[in-house]
This record gives sequence, C-alpha cells and structure tokens, in this order.
Amino acid sequence: MFLDIFKYVELLYFCDMLTTETYQKEFVKYLEQYISFKEPQNLYDPIKYILKLGGKRLRPVLTLMTCDIFEVDYKESLDAALAIEVFHNFSLVHDDIMDDAPLRRAKETVHEKWDINTGILSGDAMLIMAYQMFENYSDSTFRNLAKLFSKTALEVCEGQQYDIDFETRDDVTLPEYLKMIEYKTAVLVAAAMQMGAIIAKASIEDQNSIYEFGKNLGIAFQLQDDYLDAFGDPKTFGKQVGGDIIENKKTYLYIKALEFLAQDDKEELLQLFSTTPEDSSDKIDRAKYLFKHSGSADATKKEIESYTKKAFSILESMQISNEKKEVLLQFGESLITREV
Amino acid sequence: MFLDIFKYVELLYFCDMLTTETYQKEFVKYLEQYISFKEPQNLYDPIKYILKLGGKRLRPVLTLMTCDIFEVDYKESLDAALAIEVFHNFSLVHDDIMDDAPLRRAKETVHEKWDINTGILSGDAMLIMAYQMFENYSDSTFRNLAKLFSKTALEVCEGQQYDIDFETRDDVTLPEYLKMIEYKTAVLVAAAMQMGAIIAKASIEDQNSIYEFGKNLGIAFQLQDDYLDAFGDPKTFGKQVGGDIIENKKTYLYIKALEFLAQDDKEELLQLFSTTPEDSSDKIDRAKYLFKHSGSADATKKEIESYTKKAFSILESMQISNEKKEVLLQFGESLITREV
Repeated sequence: MFLDIFKYVELLYFCDMLTTETYQKEFVKYLEQYISFKEPQNLYDPIKYILKLGGKRLRPVLTLMTCDIFEVDYKESLDAALAIEVFHNFSLVHDDIMDDAPLRRAKETVHEKWDINTGILSGDAMLIMAYQMFENYSDSTFRNLAKLFSKTALEVCEGQQYDIDFETRDDVTLPEYLKMIEYKTAVLVAAAMQMGAIIAKASIEDQNSIYEFGKNLGIAFQLQDDYLDAFGDPKTFGKQVGGDIIENKKTYLYIKALEFLAQDDKEELLQLFSTTPEDSSDKIDRAKYLFKHSGSADATKKEIESYTKKAFSILESMQISNEKKEVLLQFGESLITREV
Repeated sequence: MFLDIFKYVELLYFCDMLTTETYQKEFVKYLEQYISFKEPQNLYDPIKYILKLGGKRLRPVLTLMTCDIFEVDYKESLDAALAIEVFHNFSLVHDDIMDDAPLRRAKETVHEKWDINTGILSGDAMLIMAYQMFENYSDSTFRNLAKLFSKTALEVCEGQQYDIDFETRDDVTLPEYLKMIEYKTAVLVAAAMQMGAIIAKASIEDQNSIYEFGKNLGIAFQLQDDYLDAFGDPKTFGKQVGGDIIENKKTYLYIKALEFLAQDDKEELLQLFSTTPEDSSDKIDRAKYLFKHSGSADATKKEIESYTKKAFSILESMQISNEKKEVLLQFGESLITREV
C-alpha cells in the first residue's frame, strides 16, 4: 500500500493535525530552547552534543501526534516528548560505550569525542533530566507519566541485557528474540504514544490500546530493520547493508533460517556466523542466499505483516473517529513500507 | 563532647524512638525482602551483590529517624529510605568504574567481579529502581519525593563532575571545593532527612530546616573524613591513613595549606603532590607536617566545628520538642566526633 501524500495532508487538515515533518520541527524548536548553558560544562556539553546530533525524532513525534489524536493540543505534551527523547539519547550514549561504537549518526560518539567516564556520567545526568521533564504536569499526571516511564526504562535496560546475553549464546529461541526486541525497542515507542494519551486524559482502555498499537508497530518496525539490513536497497538504506551479518548478529532472519534449514545448510550458516573475514562480501552473499533459500526471508516478511495487522486491529476498538484511525494507520504503513 | 549512651537510650525511649542500630537492622530486614529473584540474572545479580555488601546504611537510617522525629511511624518511610540507599549504591557502582577502583567495602567492585558494561547497565537499572520506590506513596507525596530526588541526584552527578575536573586543575579554590563536597556528599544526606519529613507531612519550614541541618552536617562529615584521612588513628580509621595524600587529592587540608604556606614550603607541597613514589611513607609524613605547620590542620578542625554549629543552630528554629532536638544533636555529635 502506498501513501497518497495529498490525500494524507487533506486528512490531517480535516483532523486538525500536523504533518510528521511539522511535529518534528516544532519538537526540535522546543528542544533547542531547552538546551541552554549549565555548569559544569564537562557534564552538560556532551548532553547538548548528542541531543543536537539529529535523528528522526520518531518517538517524541509519536507523543505529540497521539496527544492531538485524543483532541488535546499537542503543545501540552512537549515536555513528555522531550523526556522520551532525552531518555532515548541517554540509552544511545550508554549503549555506544557498551558496543564500543565509534560513530553515531555519522558523527563521533560521546565516549569517542570525550571519554568513557564522561559518557557514563553525562548519560546518568540525562536519565535524571528525563524525569524532571514531567514536573510541569499536575500531581496525578506526573505520577502516571513517571510510573510508565520507570517501567519502560527498566524494560529497555532488561532488553539491552538480553541482547548482550544473546551474543554468547547459541540457543536463542524466536520467542526470546521477540521479547528482546520488544523490550529494547518497542516498549519505548509504545510508552511514547501512551504518554500523549495520558496527557490528553484519554480513557484507560484507550491508553492501553494505543500502548499495544505502538508496541506491535514497534516490533514490526524492528523486524523490518532486521530485514532491510540484509535485503534493503544500498542506495536508500541508511546503514551498511549486511551489517548484521558482518557482526554475526542473531536476528529473526538468522534464528528462523536455522530452524528451517537441513543439517548441511544449517552447519554452513553456523560456520559463516562464527567467522569475521576481512572481505565480507562472500559471507554476506552466502548468508542472504541461505536466508532466502530456507524460507526465512519470507517468514520474516510474514511476521512483520502479522505484527502490523495486530497493531491495526487494535485501532478498531478505540474511541476515536475513523479519520483519526486512518491517520494512525497511514502513519503505521509509512513506517513499515519504508525502505530506509 | 561525649555521648552518654545510657542517657541517650533513655532519651530515645522518652521520644518513642529507636537506636541507630535498631533502625539499621529494621532497614536491612526490609532491604533483604526487596532483593528477590528477577530476570535477566546478569542484570540483577550485580544489584543484589552491591546492595548486600553492607555499609553503615547511614542515609536510609536518617530518613527513618527523621520520620519518627516528626511523629510519624518510621515504617512509613521505609520505601523512601530504600530509594536513597539504592541510589547511593548506584552512584558507588558508576563512581568505582570512573575511579578504576578494585575494591569496595573490602570486596571486589561490580565492574571487577563482572565487567564495565555490566557495571554501567546494572547501575542504570538501579537509578530507575530508586524512582520506583516512591510509587507506593500518594500522588502529592510521590511528586514531592521524586522532585527532591531528581534535583539531588543531578547535583550528585554535578559534584562527581567537579571532582573529576579538579583532578587536572591546579587552581581549585576553597569555595569551589566546598561546593563540590556539598553536591557530591552533603545534598544526599540532606535529601535523605527531608524525605522523612515529607512523608511525615512536616511543615515546609521544618522540611527546609531539616534539609539545611543535614546539608551542613554532611559537609562537616566530609571535612572530618578529609581530616581523619591524614590524622586519624590507623587502629580505628577504616581506610588507609594517608590515602588522599598518596592519591594527590586536593582536599580542604591541601588547598588551605597552599593558601597559608610561604613560597618555599608551598613549592615543596606542590612538588610532593606531583609525585607518586612507591614507598609513600616519607611523602605522607612530610605532607602531614606541612598541613600541621601551616595551620591548615587547625583551620580544617575549625571549619568542621563551624559547619556543625551551623547545623545545630538550625535545629533551634524547628517546631519539634527539645527532646527531639537533643536526639538530632546527639546523633550529629556522634557523627562528627567519630574516629572511624
């Protein structure tokens, strides 16, 4: 399904909503006025740096959009959107240390530009600053936001730990892998949307539905990321195609292929994923062949579809207009049919 | 002034309060039931480990004691006390990574026993878990506790950053040093006490007073620690006497000595603090001589007394019985006149 951009903008206008790009712009404007000079410089400079590095700002945009969906001015949710973005960047700073990653959004990572200690401490400060963003809300909203935030943040840590654990395990199952990406990626997307609903004082049922919508879409999004990492178009995919294969990452494609392949092919795949050759092009070609040949590539596509459908079926039950459901549906489609 | 232990216990009985040891025991009992089995093990095992390592539990005891001082059952404040202790241990785990410290309470540090990544991630989880401890309180109490907690936690990070910055600076002034120890150590003691007062629904004036009492006592406590590090009795002082001198730490003693000493002696001290000899006994002796001879040792003692007096004078204004003031005073005395 392709997005008819003119119809979409017409729909947004009808719903009194902005385009994704406009939410993004408004958010960045708010973010920039938040980033001001604070002492000690060595603690706050890295925070300014990472927050200004850019990125799609997907999560905060979802908070703003959800607030509008539930008929409350999105501006009310700017602080919660900021909390989500500051937390997301905290997790990037600490993850980049753990992964020993030199680059983030094509720029030096914080621990590369400064050092590991700076990365740890500035990250800690960001986690605390995220909580402070909720202080402008009323007592009960503050509590609901902070509670959801803590639960989510802890799950993100657990997801990261599972991801680390899986690196040295040979027996990771698909349910385990799905739980890992749910925790590491999807719950934050889900919480970002629920926060918009909390601020708009949506019913508990709708809050839970939008959370489940975001969670299922988040899982689909991550599976799509796994798929594109192997089969994306090098011209449009942002990262190096085959990156997961080079790093021997046990993604959905890999685990499902091991499940499907006959003994000989299975051993070849296991063998491929135990080496790190200097020139990886043969390895990538062979792994991709096995992913296709085994039926794992198709199974992954089906799983993406299944999570997307689940997300869309949740929309049905919600107490919002059909036009607003259509907005969420279109947005969901655009995330999943992306090639980047 | 010495503590007459019989009179003190009599006073506690009169105020319907427990001894420090009993608060400590009750707290540890509560802590142990909180530490239960959770997945993933590699994330939660280090948390159990550090929380069980022991320590004086000074901060949580202060929360419980303050709650009792304001006439509310200390048990009400057990969750807040736990938040403070979990946060304190989070900061130890991350600080130990930054300081490359192999030992904590005579046992392996978390990053030594596991690795740096485990220390980072388990620490992050603890910071989040600390916030979750407030969720059992009512909306407005939750907000007041979380808000104070965030402000304090951020100051602790700032204090740690100042401490790191000072290592490579030669021009640290006394006000800067005092601000650093206020942030790194004293504000958490102050917040621990204010949390007890918040839960007991003490007046805002009394909440602020107990915060200031704790802060001034905390600064006095840290200055006493600096003093004992050089001049403590090796038999009773818990750590290696002269440890700060060995590590060239710019404590109050050092900065004040540089201020007082004539050019020749000043240069000697600067020289001493730019070396790390294998046998440090001569260096320690010489530095201690210069601290005494310059008048810095005495000035430090006076500063400790001055902060203690300031803390005690704040007690005067508070809306609590004279007996309770006496309890806080005696407790303060016991912290400052300690030799360990």
